[in-house]
Parts: sequence; C-alpha cells; structure tokens
Amino acid sequence: MTIKLWDLAGAEDDRRFSPNCWRVKMALRHKGLEAEEIPWRFTDKDAIAFSGQKLVPVIVDGAREVHDSWSIAAYLDQAYPDRPLLVSGDEARTLTYFFKHWVERNIHAAVIRVIIVDLFNQLHVKDRAYFRESREKRFGQTLEQFGADRNGALAALRGALEPLRPVLVERHFAAGRAPGLADYLLFGAFQWARAVSPIRLLEPDDPVYAWRERMLDLFDGYARQAKGYPVWA
Amino acid sequence: MTIKLWDLAGAEDDRRFSPNCWRVKMALRHKGLEAEEIPWRFTDKDAIAFSGQKLVPVIVDGAREVHDSWSIAAYLDQAYPDRPLLVSGDEARTLTYFFKHWVERNIHAAVIRVIIVDLFNQLHVKDRAYFRESREKRFGQTLEQFGADRNGALAALRGALEPLRPVLVERHFAAGRAPGLADYLLFGAFQWARAVSPIRLLEPDDPVYAWRERMLDLFDGYARQAKGYPVWA
Repeated sequence: MTIKLWDLAGAEDDRRFSPNCWRVKMALRHKGLEAEEIPWRFTDKDAIAFSGQKLVPVIVDGAREVHDSWSIAAYLDQAYPDRPLLVSGDEARTLTYFFKHWVERNIHAAVIRVIIVDLFNQLHVKDRAYFRESREKRFGQTLEQFGADRNGALAALRGALEPLRPVLVERHFAAGRAPGLADYLLFGAFQWARAVSPIRLLEPDDPVYAWRERMLDLFDGYARQAKGYPVWA
Repeated sequence: MTIKLWDLAGAEDDRRFSPNCWRVKMALRHKGLEAEEIPWRFTDKDAIAFSGQKLVPVIVDGAREVHDSWSIAAYLDQAYPDRPLLVSGDEARTLTYFFKHWVERNIHAAVIRVIIVDLFNQLHVKDRAYFRESREKRFGQTLEQFGADRNGALAALRGALEPLRPVLVERHFAAGRAPGLADYLLFGAFQWARAVSPIRLLEPDDPVYAWRERMLDLFDGYARQAKGYPVWA
C-alpha cells in the first residue's frame, strides 16, 4: 500500500521546502517504499486534524498514523525490518539521536537566519500572515531584522559544520560507508535552503559540498530533481 | 603483559589532568586491560622520544607503540577483539568520530577558557614557561586575558552541551544503554577540569551532571578516586 505523506509546499505545489519532510522523503526511498507526497500549507490545519498535529511531517500507512521525523524513521525500521535499516543497533541510534539534536540546534538555527527572507517570499500567499506572526514572536524581531546579517549567518553556518568535515574526509557519509538516517537528518537542512534561496551555502572545496553532491545523486537523483535553485548558484 | 601509558601530570605525580589521557585510561578499563600510568610532564620530551611524539597519550603494548587517543582506542579494539568493544561497527564508529570532533571543537574549547588560570597554577614548575609561551602564542593573548570572562565561558560551555541533554534523558550513556567510546571521549573534558579547578561546571539538575556521576562510578569508582576537586564544589 502506498504511504501518504503530508509535505509542506510553497506558492507552487511542487516547491517542497520543509527540512523535516525531506528527512522523511529520503528515509522512505532508503527503505524502498512508495509514497504519495501531498502538498500541504501551514494554514491547512484541517487537512491533518485527524492526526492531532498542527505541523508536518505526518504519514499514514494503512491504518497507522505517525508524525515527527524521528518517530517516522523509527516506525519505518520497526514496521519494515526486512528492508534496509535506516540505523542499526542501540549505539548507532543513540549517537544519531545526538546528531539530530546537533543538526537542529547548530545547523537549522544557522540556516534559517541565512534564508529567512527568501523563504518568506516563496510561501503561499495564504501562509504569509501566519508565518510572519509566529516567527516574529519566536525571534522577538521582524523577519527582516532577524535575517539582516546574512554574511554573519553564513559564516556561523560554515563554522558550525566544522566537526563534520574530518568525518566526511574519512567516510562518504555521516553514517559511514553507506548513507543512513544521520545523513537524511542533516540533508534536510540543505534541501530547505535549496528550495527557496539562490544563496550559495557551501564552497565547492568544502567536504560538505562533496557530501551534498552524493546525497543529491542518491535514488537516481531524486532530491536533485526537486524544484529549487542549483547548488552552485 | 602490562600496557604502559605516559600520562600528563601536574605539580604532584598523581594529579593527572590530560583529557586525552583520560580517554585512554577509561578505554583501557573498559577493555579490562592492565596499565602502568607513568607520570609525564610537557617538558619531558626525551621520555617519549622513542615514539616520535612530543605529546601524550602514548602507549607501549609489548613491541607496539601507539599514540593519539583515537588511534589508541582503535588499536585496542583491533588487538583485543574478544574483550568488550569500545565501539561496534562502521556506522557507530563514524558517528563517534563526529562526536569526538564535536567534543574537541565545542566542549574542549569552552572548558579551557573556564579553567585556564587554575590549570596553569597546578602545573609542575618546570612546565610553566613552556605552557605559558605555547598557549599565549596559540590564543594570541595572555592566559589571564584568555580566561578573564569566566562566567561567559561557563555559559558558553553549558550552551554547547545542549544537543547532548535530550540524549541523556533517553539513555544513560552517549553510546546508548552501556558506556562506550563516545562517553570516554567526552568524559575526559570533565576530568580535565576536575583535576585542576574547583569551579562547578554543571548544575545538579543537568542531565549531563547525572551522566558524569555514572561515569565517575564506573570501574569501581576509578575516575572518582583520582586526585581532583569534588564535582559538587
């Protein structure tokens, strides 16, 4: 049966920018599972009310509803143990859980500051008031103030990636010789930016750039084909 | 055969403060291996000249010399595969390598700023000129200037630990249900501080505090018995 995923979209149905939905979409392909990716906007609360959630990702697999990218990944390995595992064993799972929190605190926090204004401009018109109000409340300033020092934010992002570089010199992926959940957790951040902003996050000589290329090539170039800006922009 | 470890000491032979040597000492106990921990000072270059190194940790196991805490851990799992592994499999190893770099960049960098002056005061007198000169060159300022904003450095350390807290709420150790290499990599930073400084790095309600207690209890309280300040100071 095809799994349904409610997936955040911008003004166009095919501009999919949610980092957490990207994690799930990559995880589904890693498992070799078919999915229907249903465009959803922040203000489409009714469409996912059945889940008790106000945010995506939400999936429905037959009779089962699961939300939150980490929980969805855990569900997929549990429900489909005979397909390639996203993460193997308690030690790797625990270290990946740390990696997830590092991504969210150190990488997402830097990326959002770089792309905030571009992101706002790509939103569906019906989402704009909600987005501006909720984010300005969270940031304690206007979107434009929050994103004013774009060069500073870009430097902060590149600095935050520092502990990852020696890893990607030794291995092709954050999860080792083959891509795994850790890679999808981080890759969402780059697809988030790529979907909405022409800014060049990484220099071509950065080991993280080469890793992103490998991620874009996975599953017959699935992520590369998504609507967004070229990474070399 | 007993493994020899050259282990950095302060003014007293039994004040052992090197974070990287602590990694190795914990790893040796995890493997259940006997070790002779030989006190060494920064200026005892001749004592380890045989290894081609100017810094510890250096170990000698029979005819084999190994240096660098990461390489020593890898050697121990390779040479003693039938004893408890420090890390299992390529995925966990790669994620632990990331964790190591996160510790060094985000945690060591914050700890050294908190403890620098206390550390200097605990050094053997013969090491002081070397330490001051080499570190002041590295920092581009005097030790006292580098350590002047201790409260700021402490806040930075506690902030840097943020991605670890949700992990230690879910699991007892960074490596999962049982302690592993990731735990020893991080724990060295806390033994470094505890050996030389009375400052309270963590509040008792911090999940990292409870984790450190568990680490201090391992191997019959091996690390807790080492010369240093009480962690509740």
